[in-house]
Amino acid sequence: MTAIAHRTHAAAIALSRRSAVDPFIVMDVMEHAARIEAQGGRVIHLEVGQPAAPAPLVARQAAATALAAGQVGYTAALGLPALRARIARHYGETHGVAIDPERVVVTNGSSGGFILAFLALFEPGDRVAIAAPGYPPYRHVLSALGCEPVLIETRGEDRHALTPEGLMAAHREAPLKGVLVASPANPTGTMMDRPALSALHACARDLGLAFISDEIYHGLDYAFPAVSAVEIGEDVTVINSFSKYFCMTGWRVGWMVVPPGVSRTMERLQQNLSISVPTLSQIAADAAFEGRAEMDLVKASYVENRRILTQGLPKAGLARFLPADGAFYLYADVSDFTDDSAAFARRMLDAVHVAATPGVDFDPFHGRSFLRISYAGSPPDMAQAVARIGDFLNRG
Amino acid sequence: MTAIAHRTHAAAIALSRRSAVDPFIVMDVMEHAARIEAQGGRVIHLEVGQPAAPAPLVARQAAATALAAGQVGYTAALGLPALRARIARHYGETHGVAIDPERVVVTNGSSGGFILAFLALFEPGDRVAIAAPGYPPYRHVLSALGCEPVLIETRGEDRHALTPEGLMAAHREAPLKGVLVASPANPTGTMMDRPALSALHACARDLGLAFISDEIYHGLDYAFPAVSAVEIGEDVTVINSFSKYFCMTGWRVGWMVVPPGVSRTMERLQQNLSISVPTLSQIAADAAFEGRAEMDLVKASYVENRRILTQGLPKAGLARFLPADGAFYLYADVSDFTDDSAAFARRMLDAVHVAATPGVDFDPFHGRSFLRISYAGSPPDMAQAVARIGDFLNRG
Repeated sequence: MTAIAHRTHAAAIALSRRSAVDPFIVMDVMEHAARIEAQGGRVIHLEVGQPAAPAPLVARQAAATALAAGQVGYTAALGLPALRARIARHYGETHGVAIDPERVVVTNGSSGGFILAFLALFEPGDRVAIAAPGYPPYRHVLSALGCEPVLIETRGEDRHALTPEGLMAAHREAPLKGVLVASPANPTGTMMDRPALSALHACARDLGLAFISDEIYHGLDYAFPAVSAVEIGEDVTVINSFSKYFCMTGWRVGWMVVPPGVSRTMERLQQNLSISVPTLSQIAADAAFEGRAEMDLVKASYVENRRILTQGLPKAGLARFLPADGAFYLYADVSDFTDDSAAFARRMLDAVHVAATPGVDFDPFHGRSFLRISYAGSPPDMAQAVARIGDFLNRG
Repeated sequence: MTAIAHRTHAAAIALSRRSAVDPFIVMDVMEHAARIEAQGGRVIHLEVGQPAAPAPLVARQAAATALAAGQVGYTAALGLPALRARIARHYGETHGVAIDPERVVVTNGSSGGFILAFLALFEPGDRVAIAAPGYPPYRHVLSALGCEPVLIETRGEDRHALTPEGLMAAHREAPLKGVLVASPANPTGTMMDRPALSALHACARDLGLAFISDEIYHGLDYAFPAVSAVEIGEDVTVINSFSKYFCMTGWRVGWMVVPPGVSRTMERLQQNLSISVPTLSQIAADAAFEGRAEMDLVKASYVENRRILTQGLPKAGLARFLPADGAFYLYADVSDFTDDSAAFARRMLDAVHVAATPGVDFDPFHGRSFLRISYAGSPPDMAQAVARIGDFLNRG
């Protein structure tokens, strides 16, 4: 066939204001790193937010078996019943809380959970409190769905978590409708202990706010055991994923635990917005719980990475970072060296081929003073990174 | 561990008005059918909208190979470059149109495409024209994202497609911002020929409306070759999927072709809303194009199914249905027998164990007069269905 000539026209496509979300600065870092590698450079990647390890072997085997069996059809909108039951059981095993499988909603990664939660819990215009620094899609997805993200500045002495005082102050400015917390948090790697999470939840309840807890980094806790919001109350929406602890990023499967009675609304939204979650990923996710011994070895490598960085970086000259409580992130204050962490990250990448993420992606207030360092890589890479960062700081 | 006692509380969870979307009536049909089967009944499923065949063998093999290789990580937000290029090439092969791979956006099935398209093209409150009858998520997703779906009644003599006259009339009532067309359409199975699609597109352009073309049933055209909107102009947003022709429903992978210059906005939205589309599904989708001979055999079985139904149903007493142009649906007018197609479908399921979908899911105006009959099943099932429907109509 020959190509049909298009009718030419000058009509520009009008795009909505709500689609004008910020790009991720980290993407620029990754592209720059790729250019260095294309020229033969050996980059150490401290900028990526995903594990290098594959999914548990049992999960991959379960997917392979299902794949060999033939048709891969839609599932129920809320997810495979076996997977919902398995996730519910996990809360008994890990948190000592009995969860009705009816409260479990399988989602397209944690991303899909945020869309369902924000649509179900908030009207357009509703104000939702989130911490700064925080995961950029919180504010971008809230905005795209017509809500107003209310960024609350956090402090190092509060482990960069939201506090009742901060929440009440934002609520006094104009009424909030919800609050979203994350522990362990991205980018800070800090966690909320039980008293902190309980106090914030009690405050949110008193103010009548929906309480959303992003628990995607659960399982990757080092300082103390992560507390799930379901341990504190039933009136919470927990969002989680198989991406981090279970090393299943590209599978795009996660889950929510929603308050009793809310599943039916989530089901209708999911039917319309997604039909269902990828079937092979759900089958693999169900099996993944039997692969926790394998994943605990991956976690042990993060513990070693964390030790190398928290001991090595101060000697290398990078001494100010937040408590590395969980996840696989270290949030380092680089204000002794720069007032523009993006330029600093670029220089470090050019000079010693170490890629890290500038804080500006995560924090409009103080991001120019911070770098996020991911330790999802290998221990030898971490040791090499410490040496190179030392070279860079002492050189410059 | 023992279960921790929850703090009890009476606070009901307040859900948003926008999340109050209608359930699918077809779900009730499916549940009822499952009960009959649980009691040993043999139900013929004419209600399901998915192929019984698996994905092409080459696609399943490609996924198995990738699975065996280990890590399944995130991809670029817009999709694997190889897949985007392969989809672009498809438009040259099938429609004789050169498409820049930059215009291709890989999505979470067609569902993900609608979310991106509606968010990027429309502001809250924008009016978007869709045909009645039509696929229910069109109106539900538009509503959930704050837009106003404007249902336009269609007529049999227009093959139940939107017309310029209908579009202009709706625009006169209050300005529209966009229009969404589907050909082949669900539930009607009808198609728009080139003059009809061109005329509607020209009208939309004159009115300054965004033009969205749902082409998910392309490849399943019987009456004449389906025309893609990209053949008609560059100012169109095409939404497609691997679910139907390629039999990949549970893989949740689809694509869009967007107007030149729009990909960057889609990329930022997708980064925030999804991160990326399931990786194994993308790898399988890329390979699927090499499995078209296998899929054409599946299509041949639909051709046979269509012949059995269009010849058999009139003899069985069901003589009034729309032209079965494409997809795998036949939309039958049952107003000679009932003014409540949901009750009629229930009676037919009870009496002769044939499940079909009442039109009320698709059309608030005339749905009570119609049944959607899916012929995605096997030819022997279709012959059996004709016999049973004949029994039912003659009995009753």
